[in-house]
Amino acid sequence: MTRELLEAFIAQKKSVLCVGLDPDVDKLPHAFPKTAQGIADFCCAIIDATAEYAVAYKPNLAFFEAMGPAGWSALAQVAEHLLQYPHHFTIADAKRGDIGNTAKQYAKGILEGFGFDAITVAPYMGRDSIEPFALPGKWAIGLGLTSNPGAQDFQLQPMADGRPLYAHVLDAYKNWADPGQWMVVVGATRPEGLAAVRAQLPEHFFLVPGVGAQGGSVQEVMQSGACQKGVGLLINSSRGIIYASSGDDFAEAARQEAKRLVDQMQMYWPQ
Amino acid sequence: MTRELLEAFIAQKKSVLCVGLDPDVDKLPHAFPKTAQGIADFCCAIIDATAEYAVAYKPNLAFFEAMGPAGWSALAQVAEHLLQYPHHFTIADAKRGDIGNTAKQYAKGILEGFGFDAITVAPYMGRDSIEPFALPGKWAIGLGLTSNPGAQDFQLQPMADGRPLYAHVLDAYKNWADPGQWMVVVGATRPEGLAAVRAQLPEHFFLVPGVGAQGGSVQEVMQSGACQKGVGLLINSSRGIIYASSGDDFAEAARQEAKRLVDQMQMYWPQ
Repeated sequence: MTRELLEAFIAQKKSVLCVGLDPDVDKLPHAFPKTAQGIADFCCAIIDATAEYAVAYKPNLAFFEAMGPAGWSALAQVAEHLLQYPHHFTIADAKRGDIGNTAKQYAKGILEGFGFDAITVAPYMGRDSIEPFALPGKWAIGLGLTSNPGAQDFQLQPMADGRPLYAHVLDAYKNWADPGQWMVVVGATRPEGLAAVRAQLPEHFFLVPGVGAQGGSVQEVMQSGACQKGVGLLINSSRGIIYASSGDDFAEAARQEAKRLVDQMQMYWPQ
Repeated sequence: MTRELLEAFIAQKKSVLCVGLDPDVDKLPHAFPKTAQGIADFCCAIIDATAEYAVAYKPNLAFFEAMGPAGWSALAQVAEHLLQYPHHFTIADAKRGDIGNTAKQYAKGILEGFGFDAITVAPYMGRDSIEPFALPGKWAIGLGLTSNPGAQDFQLQPMADGRPLYAHVLDAYKNWADPGQWMVVVGATRPEGLAAVRAQLPEHFFLVPGVGAQGGSVQEVMQSGACQKGVGLLINSSRGIIYASSGDDFAEAARQEAKRLVDQMQMYWPQ
């Protein structure tokens, strides 16, 4: 999907909501069996229930891999289901990163094979480990400043010039990749960080996890993270939406939570 | 597998050879179909042919994921086949790393589900993203100083104290994890780096890729990377062994190449 199309879908719907699909087999609503097929059916039901409000979906590959080969088939079913929603941007949350010839294989399987628009990637191994993901018409989403406590361990540590490691990683992304096919992960739990990252990368799209279960707020993200033109954000919520209810009303509860988040986004929508 | 067992197997065989299974479907010997079943059968044949010389096997998950859900079934077949070799250490080369609740899912699928002894992990997201992999009886293998050109981009860049990023990552591994279930990836293409890493981590096992196709030498690794007691190395070769021949003699050629590497290891075996 091109940046122009993604921005058009966002403007049309006035939403930057990305629904994270982290289907923990032990937390499925009662209606679903605790199997790989159960997680596939659950994810498809969540997609159908929230599609009116979401502009993006982000299956988290770990929750599928946890189920073994059957989980990978469940992921294939979810990817197939998402192809019925061509107005939605699709992200494989995989955090891959390896030497060039290996990275090409991940890109082949996840972007070309499953048809996802984007994949999340980890920067530690450097340029040749992440460039293979920027295929024509596809996006890579590089880790920048993450929402978890461990961000303190390396990302926020100062390099020789006094700036933190993550700022050097952002410089590299800026030099290596076109903002038309490169996003950056910036956690919502660090609004001061979000503003700093926006100052450094005025044009890039940010994928912002950490709203909801991890404690970040939509208002802060919209106010400190939006770019001047076209918003430039995808705000992800996973557990807050997909586990909004464990009862038979799980789909309606997910839909209502998606609507609530989009209402908040619209309240702080950049003029 | 405990460290004591691993060291006993290494001493008994006088080998630290890890055979990397990177089954590129386009490079399979002519005898195998270019399918997921083809890569599973190829990997099992390579394992059988080299088991006398190898002490470890390392399937690279990217090459299986490239084949979609059928590739994941192929990985399951290879993992099952490896269970017939309980005297060999098995590593899922996955380079995973994500927030705690996601990391737990990867550990569940790859270490518990498939039964691998170890998994490679990436450090960028910090402590909470990698600790979940250190399950009882299992190992995590953290990226340290890698063998690819991109190591220059971040790993070798100086932090505020003048030491490179990778040295800080090694400090963290040392503080966070028991060397009885934590290895470090150190590339063979940087022998001066290998000696520095060994000086910093005298006790840890190193997984050393980059011998063969990537240009590193067994002699340099044995001389600059061995620890005082029990060698403390696993030297990986992938393409040099598994693609030693594309003809009908592929298994014998792989076996001969494995033997050749082990002969070199024995020539420089620490006294």
